[in-house]
Amino acid sequence: MHFAEPLALTSGASIRAYDLSYETYGRLNAERSNAVLVCHALNASHHVAGVYEGQAKSEGWWHSMIGPGKPLDTDRFFVIGINNLGSCFGSTGPMHANPDRADGQVYGADFPVVTVEDWVNAQALLLDRLGIQTLAAVMGGSLGGMQALGWTLQYPDRLRHAVVIASAPNLTAENIAFNEVARRAIVTDPDFHGGNFYQHSVVPKRGLRIARMIGHITYLSDDVMNEKFGRQLRNAVANGGATEFAAGPPQGKLAPSGGSAAHEVASVGAYLYSTQEVEFQIESYLRYQGDKFADYFDANTYLLITRALDYFDPAREHCGNLSKALAAAKAKFLLVSFATDWRFAPARSREIVKALLDNQREVSYAEIDAPHGHDGFLLDDARYHGVVRAYFNNMAQEVGV
Amino acid sequence: MHFAEPLALTSGASIRAYDLSYETYGRLNAERSNAVLVCHALNASHHVAGVYEGQAKSEGWWHSMIGPGKPLDTDRFFVIGINNLGSCFGSTGPMHANPDRADGQVYGADFPVVTVEDWVNAQALLLDRLGIQTLAAVMGGSLGGMQALGWTLQYPDRLRHAVVIASAPNLTAENIAFNEVARRAIVTDPDFHGGNFYQHSVVPKRGLRIARMIGHITYLSDDVMNEKFGRQLRNAVANGGATEFAAGPPQGKLAPSGGSAAHEVASVGAYLYSTQEVEFQIESYLRYQGDKFADYFDANTYLLITRALDYFDPAREHCGNLSKALAAAKAKFLLVSFATDWRFAPARSREIVKALLDNQREVSYAEIDAPHGHDGFLLDDARYHGVVRAYFNNMAQEVGV
Repeated sequence: MHFAEPLALTSGASIRAYDLSYETYGRLNAERSNAVLVCHALNASHHVAGVYEGQAKSEGWWHSMIGPGKPLDTDRFFVIGINNLGSCFGSTGPMHANPDRADGQVYGADFPVVTVEDWVNAQALLLDRLGIQTLAAVMGGSLGGMQALGWTLQYPDRLRHAVVIASAPNLTAENIAFNEVARRAIVTDPDFHGGNFYQHSVVPKRGLRIARMIGHITYLSDDVMNEKFGRQLRNAVANGGATEFAAGPPQGKLAPSGGSAAHEVASVGAYLYSTQEVEFQIESYLRYQGDKFADYFDANTYLLITRALDYFDPAREHCGNLSKALAAAKAKFLLVSFATDWRFAPARSREIVKALLDNQREVSYAEIDAPHGHDGFLLDDARYHGVVRAYFNNMAQEVGV
Repeated sequence: MHFAEPLALTSGASIRAYDLSYETYGRLNAERSNAVLVCHALNASHHVAGVYEGQAKSEGWWHSMIGPGKPLDTDRFFVIGINNLGSCFGSTGPMHANPDRADGQVYGADFPVVTVEDWVNAQALLLDRLGIQTLAAVMGGSLGGMQALGWTLQYPDRLRHAVVIASAPNLTAENIAFNEVARRAIVTDPDFHGGNFYQHSVVPKRGLRIARMIGHITYLSDDVMNEKFGRQLRNAVANGGATEFAAGPPQGKLAPSGGSAAHEVASVGAYLYSTQEVEFQIESYLRYQGDKFADYFDANTYLLITRALDYFDPAREHCGNLSKALAAAKAKFLLVSFATDWRFAPARSREIVKALLDNQREVSYAEIDAPHGHDGFLLDDARYHGVVRAYFNNMAQEVGV
């Protein structure tokens, strides 16, 4: 969808004109009461569910959660996924022509910094165009959960429910630190060219690989890494590991374990005694994930989206008082966290719960004892999906679908 | 100390001739019973304590622990620090001439992979030269603790005590993963030149900076990062932060907090809205640490030492059974861990304790509830130092000093 009117950004800058890519699933009912906006996290897109015709492995990033008969049931709800501004999956971003330049050059490093607040504003404008005044819910995990929380503060009258999963009211110093290392890896890659690598026909793949490897470590729990990879040597890769990775889902999810076959070769084989060759299977996994990511993700987008994470902090304007910040919210909330998530730990979700309760808001909270770390929010877990399903079932009755 | 005899390495390779840098503190008693070998971790050296004449800021890396009247009291014990083979503080390493080359080129990437076992063997040879047959103790933190543990298995009759602090019986998949990302950052830096950067008169500083930033995140706890940096903006740096960092200790320790002044400016100032400029103080801290490290540390050494960490796994030859592996040990043990250390978590120390108890060994174990994460082992904490002091006091009586 094209927007010809400029969008004023939190930073004071503005985007002159822009496109937003979006997908919808299910049907908007006559009362226009069953719309659910699903917000994406770092490397995902508007393609939240379903498979593109003729593309067997094109499942949306939340395919296990959203679809006919699934916890967010598209037989009852009208689901909207929007690719955020600055991302690299169709919406206007750093790789698109900068209308402020006469020479037709792309934005590159000149793409303005965008915030969660800006994304929420852009999403609201797109919903205006779709004729949707009030959403049944805004739902998101991780950075997507921040957008759902942002909706309740910026447009409190435009949503009934916020479903905030594996998220946080802001980033900790450690979270920012990991983002910063990833950004430095990209920015100091000689192929980055100050963000204007497009003109040089190169991509800062070294930096993107490092960024993605760091990300992957933080998405997983120590436990699940030990269970899946442990100290297995690279021999295991030849025995099916590589195939398994190649067939894995594209959104940073951990592929289902290939069984115990790989595990049994753990102590087989000798060390190579090499500092640069792959020795342990975890190394092979990370390198593969890094390579794959560097082939499709835009480096400037990575900087922009990690910065949006860093900047999100609704309590900031209230001297750090989250309860005051959330006083503006009117929605009902479901929050879900994962016990082994050390990136956005359960304690961070509980901060949101407490601040909402301080304001006498209606809050449901579930802490899921799953082993997968932050990645848990993307995976199929019966208790987790049961909680979300029950919440949307109640919502369906409320909105009459 | 020069060694003209070749040293056979675990990998099957050997080093033809080599030097080991070492320092000693205190006096060896007539019975030669009061010697304590202190083993260093990743980026430290043989300079474990004391200050070099005329160099005010040259405190050894364990200066708070070792010295006259300190927990490891050099008025009673004869302390030896040895720079490990492959390191970059005087002992033979990748930056030294390779005797196997007629052209006098340095080892570079051809320096053989060294293991904890190799270091222990080299240390034993140096002690032979010093005329020390039996050590009162071998002591080390982190990777240094692995060397202490290695001593009890390789030379069980040559030490009375092993003091193993903030260590582990092997690395987890997550530990290896962090090492691997750091190594990839170095190896893929165009200035690395396959490890032969010396000939090109460059240093892969980009990679070293990233490696060090990653390391620093894992040395600290989330709590202490939040307490010290939180979400403070870079303004705080101008108010004294930079000075504090510059005056900080060189061994990766967290400088004592400069008080609450910096904390009070946390919410002052506006976001810059930049993806590349320093926005948060934690970014400034990490960049500073990365820059400093890249100025003095050798890139090939970083690869070698992280690999030595990866490879250490005494249970490996016993089908993963640590109890069987530790049956060879005869020493008495003190193990110390830190509650907030997520790099070498207390559970890892407890694995060692359990395996030793399975063998009816004499073990003392203390879990210190300090906030500083893995870095805690380098810092001054009354309970921690009290435990170590008491242990060495008993040892002093035992060896008659």
